[in-house]
Amino acid sequence: MDVGERVNGHGRTNGAHPENGGRPATVLVLGGDGYCGWPTALHLSAAGYRVVIVDSLVRRDWDEELGSHSLTPIRSIEERIATWEELRGRSISLELGDLLDGEFLAEAIARHAPDAVVHFAEQSSAPYSMIDREHAVYTQTNNVVGTLNLLFALAEHAPEAHLVKLGTMGEYGTPNIDIEEGFIEIEHNGRRDRLPFPKQPGSYYHLSKVHDSHNIHFACRVWGLRATDLNQGVVYGVLTPETALDPRLVNRFDYDGMFGTALNRFCVQAAVGHPLTVYGRGGQTRGFLDIRDTVRCIELTIANPTKRGEYRVFNQFTEQFSVRELADLVAAAGREHGLDVEISHCPNPRIEAEEHYYNAKHSRLLDLGLVPHALSATLLDSLVGVAIGHADRVREHLIEARVPWARPAAVPIPAGI
Amino acid sequence: MDVGERVNGHGRTNGAHPENGGRPATVLVLGGDGYCGWPTALHLSAAGYRVVIVDSLVRRDWDEELGSHSLTPIRSIEERIATWEELRGRSISLELGDLLDGEFLAEAIARHAPDAVVHFAEQSSAPYSMIDREHAVYTQTNNVVGTLNLLFALAEHAPEAHLVKLGTMGEYGTPNIDIEEGFIEIEHNGRRDRLPFPKQPGSYYHLSKVHDSHNIHFACRVWGLRATDLNQGVVYGVLTPETALDPRLVNRFDYDGMFGTALNRFCVQAAVGHPLTVYGRGGQTRGFLDIRDTVRCIELTIANPTKRGEYRVFNQFTEQFSVRELADLVAAAGREHGLDVEISHCPNPRIEAEEHYYNAKHSRLLDLGLVPHALSATLLDSLVGVAIGHADRVREHLIEARVPWARPAAVPIPAGI
Repeated sequence: MDVGERVNGHGRTNGAHPENGGRPATVLVLGGDGYCGWPTALHLSAAGYRVVIVDSLVRRDWDEELGSHSLTPIRSIEERIATWEELRGRSISLELGDLLDGEFLAEAIARHAPDAVVHFAEQSSAPYSMIDREHAVYTQTNNVVGTLNLLFALAEHAPEAHLVKLGTMGEYGTPNIDIEEGFIEIEHNGRRDRLPFPKQPGSYYHLSKVHDSHNIHFACRVWGLRATDLNQGVVYGVLTPETALDPRLVNRFDYDGMFGTALNRFCVQAAVGHPLTVYGRGGQTRGFLDIRDTVRCIELTIANPTKRGEYRVFNQFTEQFSVRELADLVAAAGREHGLDVEISHCPNPRIEAEEHYYNAKHSRLLDLGLVPHALSATLLDSLVGVAIGHADRVREHLIEARVPWARPAAVPIPAGI
Repeated sequence: MDVGERVNGHGRTNGAHPENGGRPATVLVLGGDGYCGWPTALHLSAAGYRVVIVDSLVRRDWDEELGSHSLTPIRSIEERIATWEELRGRSISLELGDLLDGEFLAEAIARHAPDAVVHFAEQSSAPYSMIDREHAVYTQTNNVVGTLNLLFALAEHAPEAHLVKLGTMGEYGTPNIDIEEGFIEIEHNGRRDRLPFPKQPGSYYHLSKVHDSHNIHFACRVWGLRATDLNQGVVYGVLTPETALDPRLVNRFDYDGMFGTALNRFCVQAAVGHPLTVYGRGGQTRGFLDIRDTVRCIELTIANPTKRGEYRVFNQFTEQFSVRELADLVAAAGREHGLDVEISHCPNPRIEAEEHYYNAKHSRLLDLGLVPHALSATLLDSLVGVAIGHADRVREHLIEARVPWARPAAVPIPAGI
C-alpha cells in the first residue's frame, strides 16, 4: 500500500485515516465509473487511499437507451483500472453490482470494511427523470432505495464509516432568502431552533435527493451513523490531473440535452457552430464548480469526518453564474478560438423561475482548505479546446432538450441509436 | 343519485361539487377498506357523494403476515358495500387494484373522472417500517411510488381533480418552535420568504410521508395540480354514525404493537387487565383526534377545494396530549368501569425525545367549520366499552412493541399466526 504520495500539490491528506492510526483508509466509491465517480476514484487512489469502485455500469445503459454517448471515447471500467495500475502501480478493486441489490451491497460493505463510502451511484439527470411516469418512478426508486440499502448496510456492518453522499444544490430551489449549508437558525414566536433548510426542488430527480437527505439525516439521528451530504452545484470540465495522464483514463463528457450540464453543452455547441441554446430568459442562477474541485472536495471531506451521529451538509460549489452569463463567457472564449458563436434563446422546457434572488453560502469547504479553480478564460479555452478536439464525434441532434416539464404532453421516449 | 341527504347534522355539504353546477361530485377513496378509509367512504356516501373505493386489500395481508387482526370482526369489502346499499340504498363502486400498478390507476382515474381523490392507500405503521431493511424499502417504495403514479394519473386524466392526501403530524418531528400548518414565514438576513416547514420525521414510514409531501408540492407548482395535504394526528375511536349502523359495517380496531395507535392500545390493555405500557417517560406529546373528526375533516376539505396550482396543508388534529396524560385518562376511565388499571413504563423501543416542547397550530379546519369531539370521559367510556365488549378476542402477545428503532440489533420478523 503506497501511503503518503501526493499528486495534486495541496499536501493536506495522505490517505491515512485520522482515526486509523496512520494506516491507509479504505474508501468505497459507489458509482465509480461515472462522470464524477471515476476522477474521484483516481484522485483518492493517487492520494494513497485504498479504493474500491462499486458500480452497476447502468450509466452506460442509459446512453444506449437514449442513443447518446460521451463526447470523449471512454474505455471499459476494467481497462480504465488496468491502465491506472500499469501507469501508477496502484490497484483499484472493482465490485460490479447494483445498490438495489441490498444483499450484494451489504456483503461488499462487510467484506471491505470501509472507513468512508462516497456515494455517487444515482440517476443524475433532471430531464431523464421528467421523461414520463416510468422514468420518474425509476429515478426515485433507484436513488431512494439504493441509499436506503446503503444506510442499512452501514448500520449493520460499518457503523463507524463516514458516508459522503452527493446531493445537489438543486434541492434548495430558489428561495427568496440566502441559502445556508443544510440548516438554518429560525426564530419564531419568541423561540429558536436550528432546523433543516426548507427544500423546493425542481424535478423528480432533485426530489429524489431531498428524499435521500431526509433518510440519511434520520439514520444519523437514530442509528448514530456519520454522514456528510454534499449539495453539489453544476459541475463542468473534463480533465483532472489523473484522467489527463493517458487517453485510456479519459473522463466522460456529456453534451446531450439529457445528461449534459449547461456549460459543457455550451462548449460543444460553440465547437460545432451550433448557437448556444439558453432556456428562456437565462436569468436562472446556479452554483458551479470545476471537476477538479469536485475531486478535491471529496478528498477534504473524507479527511475531515463527522462525529458519530452527526449529519453535516456542505454546499459544494465555487462560483454563482446565471445561464445568460455562462453563455456570454463561452461565446467570448469561442471567438478567441476564431469561432463564430451565436446565442439563441429557446423556449424553456423546464418550469422554473427565470429571474430570481439567489445567494447560496459555500464557506465550509473553503474552511477545510479548498482552493477553487475559477471559471477563468484559461479554463474556458481548455474546455472549448477539448470540445473542438472531439468535434467530429458530436451528434448535433442530441444537444436539443427534448423533455418538457409540462403535462399533459405527448412525451416520446427518446429514440434508440 | 341521492344528493343532499344529510346524516351528521353539520349541514355544510351535500355532495354537490362547488364547481360542478350542483351535480353530485365523484370522490375516489384510495385505501377505502382501511381504518380511516372505510368510515370516510361511508360518510361521504351518506353525504351524497358518488363514492368509488380503490383498494388492493393489502392491509388484510399485513394482518396475516404479523399474525394480528382487528379486535372488531370486520367483514369483506364486498359484504361491507352490499350491507351499506341494503341499509341505505346507496351504491359504492369498488376498484380492486394496487396503486403500484400505474396503468390500473390511470385507467381508474380516467374512467371515473373524479372531482376529488382522497388518498389513504399507504403503509401506515411506523414500527412496521422499522422491522428491517425489506420493510423499510417496501414502505417507502409502496408509499412514494403509489403517490407518484397517482400524480401522473391526475396530470394526464383529471388535472382539475382535488387531491386530498393523508400525511401525518409525525412529518414535523418535535422542533423547539411552534409547528405551523405546512409553511412558515422566515425572515433571514433582512429578506423574507414563505417556505415549507422543515421536517424531522421519526421513522421510515414518517419519512415516506415527507417524501410524498415534497412530490405533491412539486406537482402542484409545475403541473398546476390542486392538493390538500392533511397532516393528521393520532386517530382514536372506532365508531362513526355510519359504521355504527350495523355490525357488518363495523370499522377495524387495531390494538397490536405494530398498527395500534397509543390510545386504542391503552383501552384494550385496560379491558384485559394488562398494564398500560407507556414507552419510556411518556412525555412524548402528539396531536390526537376522534375518528368521527377524521371523516368530517375529509368532508370539509373536499367541500372547500384549493385553486389550481395550490398546495395547501392542514394540521388535522383537535387536541394535544402527552402519552403519560393519555395513560392517566384511560386508567381513570377504566376504574369507573370497575377495572384495576395499572400503568407501567417500559423501555422505549423508539429513539425519540421523551420530554420536549410541542405546540402545533391547527386552526384551518376549525375555520372551515369543524366542531371537534373532545376526548372526554364520555368518549373514553365508550372506547373502553368497545374494548371490554371484545375482550375475549384480545391476543395479549400482540400488544407488546416488538420492533426496536436501534440497530444493529437482532430484529426477528414477527412470527405468523
